[in-house]
Amino acid sequence: MIGSMYTSLLCSQCNQSFDIHEYHSYCPTCTQPLVAGYRLEKSRPENVIDFGNYTMWRYKKLLPVVDQANITSLGEGWTPLLPVQKTAALLGIRQLYLKEEGNNPTGSFKARGISMAVSKARELGKSEFCIPTAGNAGSALAAYAAAMSGVSHVFMPEATPNAFRLDCKIMGAEVTSVQGSIREAGMEMQKQNRDNQWCDISTLKEPFRLEGKKTMGYEIAEQLAWSLPDVIIYPTGGGTGLIGIWKAFQEMLTMGWIDHIPTRMVAVQTTGCQPVVESFEKGLDFCHLWTEPKETIANGLRVPKAFGDKLIMKTLYESKGSAVAVTEEDMMAAMYRFGKTEGLFLSPEGAAVVAAMQSMIDKKEIHPSDRVVVINTGSPYKYLENIS
Amino acid sequence: MIGSMYTSLLCSQCNQSFDIHEYHSYCPTCTQPLVAGYRLEKSRPENVIDFGNYTMWRYKKLLPVVDQANITSLGEGWTPLLPVQKTAALLGIRQLYLKEEGNNPTGSFKARGISMAVSKARELGKSEFCIPTAGNAGSALAAYAAAMSGVSHVFMPEATPNAFRLDCKIMGAEVTSVQGSIREAGMEMQKQNRDNQWCDISTLKEPFRLEGKKTMGYEIAEQLAWSLPDVIIYPTGGGTGLIGIWKAFQEMLTMGWIDHIPTRMVAVQTTGCQPVVESFEKGLDFCHLWTEPKETIANGLRVPKAFGDKLIMKTLYESKGSAVAVTEEDMMAAMYRFGKTEGLFLSPEGAAVVAAMQSMIDKKEIHPSDRVVVINTGSPYKYLENIS
Repeated sequence: MIGSMYTSLLCSQCNQSFDIHEYHSYCPTCTQPLVAGYRLEKSRPENVIDFGNYTMWRYKKLLPVVDQANITSLGEGWTPLLPVQKTAALLGIRQLYLKEEGNNPTGSFKARGISMAVSKARELGKSEFCIPTAGNAGSALAAYAAAMSGVSHVFMPEATPNAFRLDCKIMGAEVTSVQGSIREAGMEMQKQNRDNQWCDISTLKEPFRLEGKKTMGYEIAEQLAWSLPDVIIYPTGGGTGLIGIWKAFQEMLTMGWIDHIPTRMVAVQTTGCQPVVESFEKGLDFCHLWTEPKETIANGLRVPKAFGDKLIMKTLYESKGSAVAVTEEDMMAAMYRFGKTEGLFLSPEGAAVVAAMQSMIDKKEIHPSDRVVVINTGSPYKYLENIS
Repeated sequence: MIGSMYTSLLCSQCNQSFDIHEYHSYCPTCTQPLVAGYRLEKSRPENVIDFGNYTMWRYKKLLPVVDQANITSLGEGWTPLLPVQKTAALLGIRQLYLKEEGNNPTGSFKARGISMAVSKARELGKSEFCIPTAGNAGSALAAYAAAMSGVSHVFMPEATPNAFRLDCKIMGAEVTSVQGSIREAGMEMQKQNRDNQWCDISTLKEPFRLEGKKTMGYEIAEQLAWSLPDVIIYPTGGGTGLIGIWKAFQEMLTMGWIDHIPTRMVAVQTTGCQPVVESFEKGLDFCHLWTEPKETIANGLRVPKAFGDKLIMKTLYESKGSAVAVTEEDMMAAMYRFGKTEGLFLSPEGAAVVAAMQSMIDKKEIHPSDRVVVINTGSPYKYLENIS
């Protein structure tokens, strides 16, 4: 046994408690995400972290899987936090780090959430999954479902680069292409899954992808020797990582691993689909549906309505963060500039984050004295057919 | 200072010694690779390895860079060694591990050698580089040259997937496409570099890529708790990794980290370009030029004549290993089968290695009691335009 401290599953809205020994999706009363809770006591990292494990499972005591045998791992997490000081100097800020999530299995941070969700689903007796995806989550599901000898059904927008479709097929997923955005893909999936035979692991419609994503927060903290950065800038589609990192910081505070959280969490979207930015500017605690999401090279950001919109907005306000939209042109320019400067080829979503920094500096949302972490959520190589 | 134990640079053929404070290519007398030597004493891994470093630079005392400031790192190495037991069971062997090199920067194991070569060249005052490449080495050079604010000139066969060309360009390399194989690319490069203004980092024509690649050997050993596998199967183009892993094992033996080397080193090539396999079958200690290398999806294996051919053959014989060629059809079938079984999408070169196992078992070159490590040298995503 792992020694997992997992003890509760609560609705993020009404706090209703759900049996942790059964499989649950979201709160049927509030239609809001469920959130895992832990028996967190004052401790030291040394007593909790499995330092000999070089994946996200080094934090397994803080994750919901109870039995080691259910962990389905392909080596996800414990990715590098790279200092990118030439860009920091160009921008005139003290310290800049890139969390390089492209080194994950299937080339993206989605591996964390899906490894977690599939592992916990396995523990609860599930082995057939479905997901709507902008691309990378589908690749990850195909991989982890194959690894645990399960079955996966992936629904993706027709405009998704073919690379993602091929990736899923190589790993044995059943792939359906859908006209529209990830929203329409989700609707088609629900139609085909009317009897709920398949375990739906849509973003935040199951509670455990969030737990996988939160490991990014633990890693950033550990890699910075438990001294949190001033700003974390995150490309926000479904927003699980943004919420997850913030959740990790709260947990660390409860355990006394840190004594305060200085970090401002920043969401980056594209000007063609910016529901979070719009809500932030209006001070809303939820997001309206973005009715005409423009196609973008950053397909992971083309999410017209995140199921976890309230948790995203809560994170931005609680952390005194902000939300920024960038244009396609600025994103592409940032990708080339950063590649030539740092030797790191970003995914479009990662490039969006780098592009957002200049305007944040101009608006004094980033200060010269700040230590900033940007997240590159994935490898660029699956997007190449749209890059030139 | 790092505490590097680097002390000598000797010709692999005539043992002539070269000044380690100057930049050298290969032995001008023998036209053979130079090999770095170290002051190796009996020690324990705990006293040599920097366990807090989660890149290949954890072994920096066993690498030739002397001053930490010269290390150009993008997070290369310390990649997962994944147990792939479903495939082991299908093949009827005791234990099978996959060394997943696709998680490296620029998506391949080339990052190790190039990080090393560029770092040491920097220490010796060089900053302008050239390379002929089947693809991934060029990507890696572009990245590390950019990271150290240097300049790179990359020469690749026209038949290389465009993804590699784009990758290089994004990171600011000057790319030249050449008709023919990597051999013709190298000849065109030499023509353009007649005055030797550029630092030529062709495979084994400079001594330090080998040192970067040898870290795979240290990692495999450390990840297996210093108990070496019975077989390591390696896709062999230029062969640096094969030679490097074997070199690491010799060094570990000298330091007393292991008491013997049970490992048989196996080279895998394609039936369309198999100079090493041919030489092995004939018992030669060098390779003939393969005059008509067929195009293959595994472009990294399309090397008609490796500069380090003698070291490759020596490694195979010393380790009591072997050499195997696979067809394109078997390679593609292995890629699909492994993807569906393990949830791991291999590069074509990695698929070649997996494909080779069945015939090795049939020929009793792999036994049911063996612990086997296969190397997946890179991410498949840069090859997608040729996969369907």
